[in-house]
Amino acid sequence: MRVVLELPVVQRVVVGVIVVNSVTIGMETSHFLMERVGGVLHLVDRVALGVFVVELVARVYGYGREFSKDPWNWFDVVIVGVALVPASGPTSVLRALRILRALRLVSAVPSMRRVVSALLAAVPGMASIIGLMVLMIYIAAVIATKLFGAIVPERFDELPQSLFTLFQIMTGDDWGNVAQEVMAHRPWAWVFFIVYILASTFVALNLFIAVVVNAMNDTEPSPAESRAQDDLVAMRQELAAVNAKLDQILMRDHAPEDQRRGR
Amino acid sequence: MRVVLELPVVQRVVVGVIVVNSVTIGMETSHFLMERVGGVLHLVDRVALGVFVVELVARVYGYGREFSKDPWNWFDVVIVGVALVPASGPTSVLRALRILRALRLVSAVPSMRRVVSALLAAVPGMASIIGLMVLMIYIAAVIATKLFGAIVPERFDELPQSLFTLFQIMTGDDWGNVAQEVMAHRPWAWVFFIVYILASTFVALNLFIAVVVNAMNDTEPSPAESRAQDDLVAMRQELAAVNAKLDQILMRDHAPEDQRRGR
Amino acid sequence: MRVVLELPVVQRVVVGVIVVNSVTIGMETSHFLMERVGGVLHLVDRVALGVFVVELVARVYGYGREFSKDPWNWFDVVIVGVALVPASGPTSVLRALRILRALRLVSAVPSMRRVVSALLAAVPGMASIIGLMVLMIYIAAVIATKLFGAIVPERFDELPQSLFTLFQIMTGDDWGNVAQEVMAHRPWAWVFFIVYILASTFVALNLFIAVVVNAMNDTEPSPAESRAQDDLVAMRQELAAVNAKLDQILMRDHAPEDQRRGR
Amino acid sequence: MRVVLELPVVQRVVVGVIVVNSVTIGMETSHFLMERVGGVLHLVDRVALGVFVVELVARVYGYGREFSKDPWNWFDVVIVGVALVPASGPTSVLRALRILRALRLVSAVPSMRRVVSALLAAVPGMASIIGLMVLMIYIAAVIATKLFGAIVPERFDELPQSLFTLFQIMTGDDWGNVAQEVMAHRPWAWVFFIVYILASTFVALNLFIAVVVNAMNDTEPSPAESRAQDDLVAMRQELAAVNAKLDQILMRDHAPEDQRRGR
Repeated sequence: MRVVLELPVVQRVVVGVIVVNSVTIGMETSHFLMERVGGVLHLVDRVALGVFVVELVARVYGYGREFSKDPWNWFDVVIVGVALVPASGPTSVLRALRILRALRLVSAVPSMRRVVSALLAAVPGMASIIGLMVLMIYIAAVIATKLFGAIVPERFDELPQSLFTLFQIMTGDDWGNVAQEVMAHRPWAWVFFIVYILASTFVALNLFIAVVVNAMNDTEPSPAESRAQDDLVAMRQELAAVNAKLDQILMRDHAPEDQRRGR
Repeated sequence: MRVVLELPVVQRVVVGVIVVNSVTIGMETSHFLMERVGGVLHLVDRVALGVFVVELVARVYGYGREFSKDPWNWFDVVIVGVALVPASGPTSVLRALRILRALRLVSAVPSMRRVVSALLAAVPGMASIIGLMVLMIYIAAVIATKLFGAIVPERFDELPQSLFTLFQIMTGDDWGNVAQEVMAHRPWAWVFFIVYILASTFVALNLFIAVVVNAMNDTEPSPAESRAQDDLVAMRQELAAVNAKLDQILMRDHAPEDQRRGR
Repeated sequence: MRVVLELPVVQRVVVGVIVVNSVTIGMETSHFLMERVGGVLHLVDRVALGVFVVELVARVYGYGREFSKDPWNWFDVVIVGVALVPASGPTSVLRALRILRALRLVSAVPSMRRVVSALLAAVPGMASIIGLMVLMIYIAAVIATKLFGAIVPERFDELPQSLFTLFQIMTGDDWGNVAQEVMAHRPWAWVFFIVYILASTFVALNLFIAVVVNAMNDTEPSPAESRAQDDLVAMRQELAAVNAKLDQILMRDHAPEDQRRGR
Repeated sequence: MRVVLELPVVQRVVVGVIVVNSVTIGMETSHFLMERVGGVLHLVDRVALGVFVVELVARVYGYGREFSKDPWNWFDVVIVGVALVPASGPTSVLRALRILRALRLVSAVPSMRRVVSALLAAVPGMASIIGLMVLMIYIAAVIATKLFGAIVPERFDELPQSLFTLFQIMTGDDWGNVAQEVMAHRPWAWVFFIVYILASTFVALNLFIAVVVNAMNDTEPSPAESRAQDDLVAMRQELAAVNAKLDQILMRDHAPEDQRRGR
């Protein structure tokens, strides 16, 4: 069973089905195409789902216990599982999420898998800075709600709006207008916005640097570095040889001096 | 006293109170929640403030002189102190700043503390470039006020507006519109804006690089580097041993040649 | 033939013709200049095209087989070839693309060539992350079309509009407005936008890092590094000499002990 | 003369005059302050200009030939010279540029001077990429003028407008709106905008990387690196000593074997 699943041709078929299915789900968004070939698209969708279910069952059967150990397998189970839940209406969120199936491409193509694993591996090292950022946005949102909630209610009425607005400001989108709306009533509000922008930019910059530094450290050494490394290893061996030869000389000179004479 | 304060359970309680208090201050911004549980929220706020004051007094008492040496303690004093100042009205700025208490999370959680200390440690190295940037914005603001103040008074009327507008332009927000408003009257104004954008981007880029380079230098060496370092140390020791053995050989051969013979 | 083509003066003439022609094509966009010197500009254009064709034919003739091996030559052939195709109308796209001839500057100036080669060399290493990014935008576009297509048709009506809108959001341009238009009807839509922005920023950040890390690894070693490298090489040689001398000592002491005596 | 000019107190006075003068020029932009203390501000300006002229003349006299060798001196001459040119009207550009005198702060404070020198030193290494960027914007502007000039004349009418618009798009400001205006008439225009944005982002990214890599290479070695460097130097010396001792041993053993015996 496993042997079959790991055949390149089987894996390529699965990748092919994922790609075809992703394209047909995309085509379903077209009014024009749905009118003409809607039936075919639905059929392809059903067949693809069938293939996924069969492949998943085969993998559960083939790998047994091991199956549950690989988080990528759980990822596949969730994605295929979502597709099996009956959706209530044509515009339901669940139906829209069917396209997440295209993410199976990531779990099916090893190079994609490596990239995503590398991305996720970078997250824990950033936890403290992300925590700091969340704290900062929360504090700024509470202050903004209290100070500006009554003035510009469409942006700062309650905490959720403020959080959204401050996230938007952090991305630098249209913050000048937001600030000017507020400053029309509270001329000193620029202090809040400029402090917030400087602080969030500074924290974001450091988040970015944390990621870069992590990435640098995980990098393969450059050709020059590995040459240097090889030189060091070779020299250490040669030095050990030198040391051993000196021991030999010392030993011989020292000990059976007479014996050596006697030869 | 100190022993009690450094008990994990006490520290966890303090962190818990900070979190709960931060959440309740956030909840106070909700009209809906204030109508229903406003009393409870105020009560929690009072209790939390009480806990902070008690903990702070205990720390002053427990650590004595040492207390005043740690800047984080001063940080805590200021934040708790602000909360004790009576606020005049319900929308007063001071009441809004109560949420800064959530920043005590930073001083109470060691990993947060380290991140913030690292961020602040990066600042002195950037002082010259920040100075240059401030100088640049100031010069540009004076020029813009003189040249465009009469044309687009809502943006460049006096120095403060110009400073705000130029800070906004530096962040890249909506600068095209600002420039076009001005260029409607002064067609050559693009020279000013493009020079300013290029110069501020270039300085910002270099500010950024200064931070990255600092961060890189403070980084722990990579595994390969520390292996190389270990190799070097080991080789140096081995080389010293080689040298010592050679000295031994030279010594023996040289000096009591006769004595050696005589054996 | 080759010798002539590689004369500095010939190469400088070709670069000069490219620059002059690029300027005249630019001047053709000016209504004012076209009325007065339109004839001259067209004449220059014809002459320049003639020079390019002659130079290209000479290169084909001079380098023979080798000509087809350098991709830059194919680049030149395509650009000159496009110019020879008769354009149907004055505003035709092909006529507008004539200015791509200015790109011949890149193939004619060695330092430009190196920069572009370096840029293109960075692309393969980024393939997986770019693939991930395309996949992400595609998935988000399908979801957005299904969920928001009926609500904000001018932005999410069908897949192409959604793809454009999401690309725009990824660049951070005006996303707040797009999100607010959607949220007017679907208050929970912020989840979609914030997840999409965080995910795309994170992937873009990693794409960026991949490029930086690649660039770092391809970098020349710093002066300090090459000094260290030289030290290592010198030490390795010296160590080899030490080892050889020790062998000599061991050999002599050991073997023809009698012979040595006998001398 | 030189001795006087290099006295810390003199230098501090000059810096002080620059700062005071920069502030008063800033204050002159305030209608409120001009009405009240306008006379004083003008007086300070005259006095400051007098100080600058005297200091400059003293420097020319004191340093003689050397004066003309330092580009920072020329910088000072130009800035003070501009202030001496009589300005025709109160809003003249030259009067507005008087504030550039604040830049003398850069030439007068050594740490600022170093930062700016470092910034400028980074420029030559970026020349090729900047050239490529200018070429790209020029080509895109010619194409945009030809294709979109008749449709959206307020943005692409002639080359200068197109260049401005494309620079704006490159900074990511409001490009979605520009593209949508054009796409209303030319639905395929997204190709142009997306290709342009991707290409310019990619080139900008590489420009950025060139600057970072340059900065990294010019960086002082980290503590670990200089320790490694020291180790290498020490080992090389020790190895030389080892080699010398071995030569000594070989020499002695070899040559006057008899002589040694004879002792």
